Amino acid sequence: MALPRIAVTMGDPAGIGPEICLRMLAEPSVIDRCVPVIFGDVGVLKRVAQTVGLPLEAVAHTSPTFGGDSAQLPYRTIRADEWSSAWISINEPAIFDLRAIDADAVQPGTVDQASGLASYRYIEAAIAAALAGEVDAVCTGPINKAALNAAGVHYAGHTEIFTARTAADRACMMLTCDELTCSFVTTHVGYRDVPGLLNVERVREVIELSHDAMMRLRGWPPSLIVCGLNPHAGENGLFGNQEEERIILPAIKAARQQGINVEGPLPPDTAFLPARRRDTDCFVCMYHDQGHIPLKALAFDVAVNITLGLPIIRTSVDHGTALDIAWQGKAKMTSLIEAMSLAARLAS
Amino acid sequence: MALPRIAVTMGDPAGIGPEICLRMLAEPSVIDRCVPVIFGDVGVLKRVAQTVGLPLEAVAHTSPTFGGDSAQLPYRTIRADEWSSAWISINEPAIFDLRAIDADAVQPGTVDQASGLASYRYIEAAIAAALAGEVDAVCTGPINKAALNAAGVHYAGHTEIFTARTAADRACMMLTCDELTCSFVTTHVGYRDVPGLLNVERVREVIELSHDAMMRLRGWPPSLIVCGLNPHAGENGLFGNQEEERIILPAIKAARQQGINVEGPLPPDTAFLPARRRDTDCFVCMYHDQGHIPLKALAFDVAVNITLGLPIIRTSVDHGTALDIAWQGKAKMTSLIEAMSLAARLAS
Repeated sequence: MALPRIAVTMGDPAGIGPEICLRMLAEPSVIDRCVPVIFGDVGVLKRVAQTVGLPLEAVAHTSPTFGGDSAQLPYRTIRADEWSSAWISINEPAIFDLRAIDADAVQPGTVDQASGLASYRYIEAAIAAALAGEVDAVCTGPINKAALNAAGVHYAGHTEIFTARTAADRACMMLTCDELTCSFVTTHVGYRDVPGLLNVERVREVIELSHDAMMRLRGWPPSLIVCGLNPHAGENGLFGNQEEERIILPAIKAARQQGINVEGPLPPDTAFLPARRRDTDCFVCMYHDQGHIPLKALAFDVAVNITLGLPIIRTSVDHGTALDIAWQGKAKMTSLIEAMSLAARLAS
Repeated sequence: MALPRIAVTMGDPAGIGPEICLRMLAEPSVIDRCVPVIFGDVGVLKRVAQTVGLPLEAVAHTSPTFGGDSAQLPYRTIRADEWSSAWISINEPAIFDLRAIDADAVQPGTVDQASGLASYRYIEAAIAAALAGEVDAVCTGPINKAALNAAGVHYAGHTEIFTARTAADRACMMLTCDELTCSFVTTHVGYRDVPGLLNVERVREVIELSHDAMMRLRGWPPSLIVCGLNPHAGENGLFGNQEEERIILPAIKAARQQGINVEGPLPPDTAFLPARRRDTDCFVCMYHDQGHIPLKALAFDVAVNITLGLPIIRTSVDHGTALDIAWQGKAKMTSLIEAMSLAARLAS
């Protein structure tokens, strides 16, 4: 049986994406389960490899048919004009060389519009390949939103790009690791904007997307908990504007009528106690930090980001570009390996 | 040297407060460090002891001078009319019998206005005793805010009661345990109300109170981190209303000018990473769940609540009345023991 082919976007060229992508291509736990294809720039990868001292001299898989630019990298490289005929024969780790940026001009560790635009080109190409069935899943490396913004690309994050470019009518972010899985009703919006974005239908939709995803991952009906918005989940209306009674509880009731095993709304601070974490497959969170705080406190570097509700499979690292340590060989690739592993499981 | 005398409020009679208070009186790690005095009702404590099977027949410390009502409890009992002459001679675990409720009428595990009112009477008496110097600190058992409200006592929580009744002009909540210490700019208010309560002076004040408290607890200048309000701390203004730039950063700069070692604003989700937790003495949080979520996820049952800025010392358990397991002998007293231990340290 063929291994799933997974597009891995290289992320912002000035961040830690290139180095972790390159090291991942040689990681046995990844290449035993899938065929990774970096969607990025060979020129950047070469410069990174030289800068951080990654070995370039391993056995070259490069076919002379597909350009000679990768002589120093031991992976098959495919140019944009070759992709349409080449993709079908990719069955070993490879690099799709999108030539979206002048590699020599990249300033490691800096926010730059050229890097932001390049990171967006990799995502566009990966989404197109996934929609066309040329790859079985997309796994995204870290992008820098300020760089993306500087390049005139005004999305709040990957989730929003994937939702828009796959014409998904509903989607949500999920973060998962062994310790904890959370899905999100809202994500990259200001603290103040969250209450206005909550409504019964959206909360119900995220419960349903979470149920479906966990059903697929676990193989049995999952157990879900929905967090309240206010401290103590409003404590029976003492705090807040009864968002629990007006919005969250009706959504839970509607989901239960669909046969979903879901409890709540729970006080957000006691939702994540160890005993509850053991018994709960997914926590539905109202806002970004409600779920990101416990996830990162408990399991930084290993959580994986999945976008639910898309017509394609998409996972991602759960960390940023880490500009302060970019191109220094210090970045950990644990989250990327977990993200590849989950993409492979979902695609199989 | 005399051990500090600590008033321990019994909490809501229908909750787990009475049983954990009673067991605490016999706990060596507590009574070796302080003299605990329960501010509560002997009648309730007796019923609880009988219901959960706590031993009543130990050596009786009760002096015949001080009422005969405690014949079955092995602790000296003091009635309200005896307190003013008796408090000075309390040097062993004792009970201040406030007779604030008909013990036979208490329905364990239920929200009731009589219980709410009684729990408030214990607090009033403990605050008065501390302000008068009759006790060296107050440690509070869990109250039920719905019961308090039903009794017409409209405070959002202990912190607000202590602030009002000690005429403190500024105060804040701090939660602390070995793993993590957090202080709070806002606490028991609805999610939606938080942004309107943030201002430079309040954030600076909580930084200063936190610095002073940690200085006292640690004995050396502490290292503080202030969390942002928005996801990613606003990511340079991309999310939110620039609360980080307008409010939090100026407060941090003002605190630094006072010589306080404080960093931030940090993205709330990466503030609590293990490495940061090791290097940081206290995290200043903008809202209740920002700090309560990681604290409870990492250290439920052991964190202690302190109110900073009061003219008296006040610590508290960090859990609620746990009505579902009240009077069943299942409640853990770890948080109460930690709270007593911290009160004793602060009072010594």
